[in-house]
Amino acid sequence: MPISTKLDYTLAAQKIAFAPFEFQAAKAMIETGILRYIRKNKWSSISQITENLKLTEYGVTVLIEAGIAMNIILEKDNRYALSKMGMFFVCDKMTELNFRFTDHVCYKGLEHLGESIRKGKPDGLMVFGKWTTIYEALADLPDNTRRSWFNFDHFYSDQAFPEALPIVFKCSPKNILDIGGNTGRWAIECLRYSDTVKVVIADHEGQLKDAESNLRKENLLERASFYPTDFLKGIQKLPKGFDIIWMSQFLCCFSEEEIQNILHVAKGSLGKNSRLFILDTFLDKQKNPVAEYILRMTSLYFTCFANGNSKVYHSNTIINCIKKAGLAVKKETNHIGLGHTLLECINPD
Amino acid sequence: MPISTKLDYTLAAQKIAFAPFEFQAAKAMIETGILRYIRKNKWSSISQITENLKLTEYGVTVLIEAGIAMNIILEKDNRYALSKMGMFFVCDKMTELNFRFTDHVCYKGLEHLGESIRKGKPDGLMVFGKWTTIYEALADLPDNTRRSWFNFDHFYSDQAFPEALPIVFKCSPKNILDIGGNTGRWAIECLRYSDTVKVVIADHEGQLKDAESNLRKENLLERASFYPTDFLKGIQKLPKGFDIIWMSQFLCCFSEEEIQNILHVAKGSLGKNSRLFILDTFLDKQKNPVAEYILRMTSLYFTCFANGNSKVYHSNTIINCIKKAGLAVKKETNHIGLGHTLLECINPD
Repeated sequence: MPISTKLDYTLAAQKIAFAPFEFQAAKAMIETGILRYIRKNKWSSISQITENLKLTEYGVTVLIEAGIAMNIILEKDNRYALSKMGMFFVCDKMTELNFRFTDHVCYKGLEHLGESIRKGKPDGLMVFGKWTTIYEALADLPDNTRRSWFNFDHFYSDQAFPEALPIVFKCSPKNILDIGGNTGRWAIECLRYSDTVKVVIADHEGQLKDAESNLRKENLLERASFYPTDFLKGIQKLPKGFDIIWMSQFLCCFSEEEIQNILHVAKGSLGKNSRLFILDTFLDKQKNPVAEYILRMTSLYFTCFANGNSKVYHSNTIINCIKKAGLAVKKETNHIGLGHTLLECINPD
Repeated sequence: MPISTKLDYTLAAQKIAFAPFEFQAAKAMIETGILRYIRKNKWSSISQITENLKLTEYGVTVLIEAGIAMNIILEKDNRYALSKMGMFFVCDKMTELNFRFTDHVCYKGLEHLGESIRKGKPDGLMVFGKWTTIYEALADLPDNTRRSWFNFDHFYSDQAFPEALPIVFKCSPKNILDIGGNTGRWAIECLRYSDTVKVVIADHEGQLKDAESNLRKENLLERASFYPTDFLKGIQKLPKGFDIIWMSQFLCCFSEEEIQNILHVAKGSLGKNSRLFILDTFLDKQKNPVAEYILRMTSLYFTCFANGNSKVYHSNTIINCIKKAGLAVKKETNHIGLGHTLLECINPD
């Protein structure tokens, strides 16, 4: 959206000053069914909407009038239709998941963003309870918070995994160490992709329970095992003897110092012909401004909720960490899924 | 901001899905002093900002990177400056007051906007305590909430009063009934403008205490008196014998039905040569899209916090109420202050 005149600048500033109004108005327009209704019934009047959705004329009016200001709703002779932008709130999965993530995970706690930055701690997390990081808390978060967190997390990795699989399996690995394996989605993909590969998932005990249950449902437990650990408390070593060590959307959960340490430990566990694959999103490797925008906002989630010192990085930050840990990048593949980069690393020693 | 391509629509939708992130990031950029610093020190590096503001490099980085996505901050060779839009957060009084109003009065309670619409009650108000309307609550709200509410309210009326005074005083009124006189700002203007006029302020007891104290400070109590009442509970009559009845930013606090009743009662109190002056903002009488945007968002404040059934109206809604109450509009003056309209009404009987 090019901004050019003084009025545009003024309006853009007000749109930030009233941003929480926009968010909650959009939510109310979705939840009351107004957006779906005017999508199906183009150019409806206020009274038609009111009658069909069993709302008050007043309630429909204030939301419609706000929707016009937000470019979600179009107006013509006191009749209303969904705008092209409004379509995203009705039809687009990514917009829906981003919206729910902000709503269920972030809205309340974001009030503590400033404090989180001053303290270097994820102060927003306190709205859910007393935890040091969200990774400890995940298993115990309220149901809708937990669901929206995982849906957000999985949506982006789900698009990347199918493209990453053939690259990772080119070397026909016998076994994979899946570091930060979360609820087992990558492990399941691997165990399905190959009939022989074995996978060890390393993560928090809470996530491993979920992972185990998910693998059981898929009848894939036989070639899987679990390695409970807490990377945020600092790790000294990892099990050895894997053809591949895999880290997906994992390093973004740590500070630069921690990343260097993790990569150093990973190096110690890499054999001569082993590969370390890092799948992550980088600010500077995006094809379009939408992906970059989402990543820049997601960094603030890491500040306020995750652990207070992690973020979405520039690729050179991570590549520097890789080099400092004594590893070498053998290949970089960009534009995987919606905006992931796959770094294939080796131990050059 | 013209939106034209599919990418623009997608981005605009994400900006709503992440709107609370934008709001809290802007707040943190203001409160940490980052915006002021890069305004004074154009094209600073992250380390310069970090050192001078005693923040962590991490904290400055995530905010700067978010600020770029929000068009608040400009980037050139890893150095940063304030954008033209960012200037509004540092220099513009209106943006500052809108921002603080959203922050201190609305952020938390806006989560209850949907419920407020379903129930027809200002459910957002519950975050402050158990009240039916914000007008009962005003005297007891937390200090910064109260201050931000009055600053927001006064800012807009303060620009309008000087232009409205000569119009109202053209008929040399002996006495004015100031309905919904709030903390006495209009009364003070009138008592200063004329050495002889007397003013009666009608409002909630809480506000009248403030008004009395403010008039005392100005040494203007001699020609003022007070009429405690609660218009939201329905009024049957008003005192008579005034040359002018005045309602500033008052009718927007009521539903259409209540407005009609209030105007009907006001009619009963208007003498043959009396005038009723209504000063208010109307959605359809704005000169620019910024003013209209602010008013459309402000309607949602009335829904969620004020009383659950009032809003910023279209002028024809109020003019219809005036007619239905048996009054006639003698003159309409638009574009007063930042976007007020002054309606001069008479009793045609």
